[in-house]
Amino acid sequence: MYLVDSMALKQFGIGTVFALALLATQAVADPLSSWNDGRSKQAIIDFVAKVSEPGSSDFVPSAERIAVFDNDGTLWAEQPLYVQLLFAFDRIKALAPDNPNWKTTQPFKAVLEDDLETVLSGGEHALLELIMATHAGMTTSEFSAIASEWLSTAKHPVSGHLYTDMVYQPMLDLLAYLRANGFKTYITSGGGIELIRVFAEDVYGIPPEQVIGSSLKVQYEYRDGKPALVRLPEISFVDDKDGKPVAINQHIGRRPIAAFGNSDGDLQMLQWTCAGDGARLCLYVHHTDKKREWAYDRESHIGRLDKGLDQAEADGWTVVDMKNDWNVIFSFEAH
Amino acid sequence: MYLVDSMALKQFGIGTVFALALLATQAVADPLSSWNDGRSKQAIIDFVAKVSEPGSSDFVPSAERIAVFDNDGTLWAEQPLYVQLLFAFDRIKALAPDNPNWKTTQPFKAVLEDDLETVLSGGEHALLELIMATHAGMTTSEFSAIASEWLSTAKHPVSGHLYTDMVYQPMLDLLAYLRANGFKTYITSGGGIELIRVFAEDVYGIPPEQVIGSSLKVQYEYRDGKPALVRLPEISFVDDKDGKPVAINQHIGRRPIAAFGNSDGDLQMLQWTCAGDGARLCLYVHHTDKKREWAYDRESHIGRLDKGLDQAEADGWTVVDMKNDWNVIFSFEAH
Repeated sequence: MYLVDSMALKQFGIGTVFALALLATQAVADPLSSWNDGRSKQAIIDFVAKVSEPGSSDFVPSAERIAVFDNDGTLWAEQPLYVQLLFAFDRIKALAPDNPNWKTTQPFKAVLEDDLETVLSGGEHALLELIMATHAGMTTSEFSAIASEWLSTAKHPVSGHLYTDMVYQPMLDLLAYLRANGFKTYITSGGGIELIRVFAEDVYGIPPEQVIGSSLKVQYEYRDGKPALVRLPEISFVDDKDGKPVAINQHIGRRPIAAFGNSDGDLQMLQWTCAGDGARLCLYVHHTDKKREWAYDRESHIGRLDKGLDQAEADGWTVVDMKNDWNVIFSFEAH
Repeated sequence: MYLVDSMALKQFGIGTVFALALLATQAVADPLSSWNDGRSKQAIIDFVAKVSEPGSSDFVPSAERIAVFDNDGTLWAEQPLYVQLLFAFDRIKALAPDNPNWKTTQPFKAVLEDDLETVLSGGEHALLELIMATHAGMTTSEFSAIASEWLSTAKHPVSGHLYTDMVYQPMLDLLAYLRANGFKTYITSGGGIELIRVFAEDVYGIPPEQVIGSSLKVQYEYRDGKPALVRLPEISFVDDKDGKPVAINQHIGRRPIAAFGNSDGDLQMLQWTCAGDGARLCLYVHHTDKKREWAYDRESHIGRLDKGLDQAEADGWTVVDMKNDWNVIFSFEAH
């Protein structure tokens, strides 16, 4: 409709204008223009039509049109490393002057020396230590300010673009398409809830209350005579695998009718979604484009998609082939 | 506007109809008609005008107009006992035939004998035992079905009305008034999140995703070949006192600009809300009407309002005097 020249239409009566606007919309505006025609795109369009057209036997009231999206690898790039970890590494470097012992203590030493192999060899414990040293101790608003500042300046180590530019254009189009059809879109990420909330509204159009993620414990206390919420160095909830349906139930209290993921960490969320009655859409983004993005699945340490690929095949879920289904991946490609 | 006779208006042109409808609305429809004119009502109206009128120096965008409401004693009655406990007692009686040992084991024995004094003498531990025996072990959907069935039949021990009729009409009007002015209304209750979600949408117009409450741990598992969320007999989160601002941050991710409570359990939520910048509304419902409801505050075991009353006075928060500020409490009074 935004493509219709409103000046030109003013010469017609009101009824004519609406009729023409409708025709024009159908003719020119493909809300999923970043998606190539094919099975994936058709599955999405068919599903949305089924649940949103009044009179359809699969009609779902708008309030129940809940769609959940994983973030890392589903909405934005997760290679060569999760953004959250890259953020933690940068914070370690920024905080190093105040922590001179880090120069000689692992895993901090390895981060300061850009020795990724040693960092990762420390396993989950080392990563947790880095997260706690960089994500806890401050108030929630202090953390948001730090994360926001970092996201507005830090660059992706491979592309050189801002991290918030490393989002998939076809998924942005999909989010907008679902919302235009009465869906409420949520993020359900293994990443930290407070980091995602910093940019989700601007970048994805998803407000903070529709972001679900992993979290640290938070404590209510008075600081400088004012109430504050302080982030403690203790995990409260891990929103991954089994945790995803549990967190969806806790936050939303309804079973979604559509779920979008890219890894085995999203499998239980897709299972839970597609086990509900009525029309359902479960979709995996399969990273198949070595040239424009990355190609990885069953053997990857990051975003492994193995069991999920098997179940997708067995249950007839939609598997997006990024290379062939998406005619653009990042919006900066076009420039 | 619903009071305007639309047939009578059909004789006028469209512009006239709108102008008249507007006038009629201003003249006849008081959205807070259950509130008597006075300081409390005026404080609400002034606050809403300040934050919602474009151009006002206190204007708040609609997306940030978050209002949080306690449930027990703020939206519905909590005397002579929290509804959740009355539900647990009824469930103990319903499940007794399958648990013959309850006849001789406390605190179950006392419940079966309607010996409230003995039940309460067991303290928090006894109550927790009763909650776990009645609220855990089943799937989330099984629990919702049980709670829904109970709410549609069980009667309040004093009034004889359904529990869902024990809601305060002035608070229903307030919820609707805030929403009509672009607010998003949330419940933040010390009660169980899944019990409140069963009726909050029908009764308060608040969808499940805007209900925050205390919760049990929930486990994702397969039952009869299908994924299920099973409620475990273990507390996950207590949404009371310090827990309220913490849960608000977790679920909403924004600081509310208005908070409504009735007890010291809501104090931190009100503190957190009113410590934010810009216009804020913190309001306590003070139970002062012995005749139409109950009168209790500083000495009550249920819904104690002591420290909160002091801070309300010190900080100039609004304190609703139920007896004098509300011309109706329950909608059934009118019949």
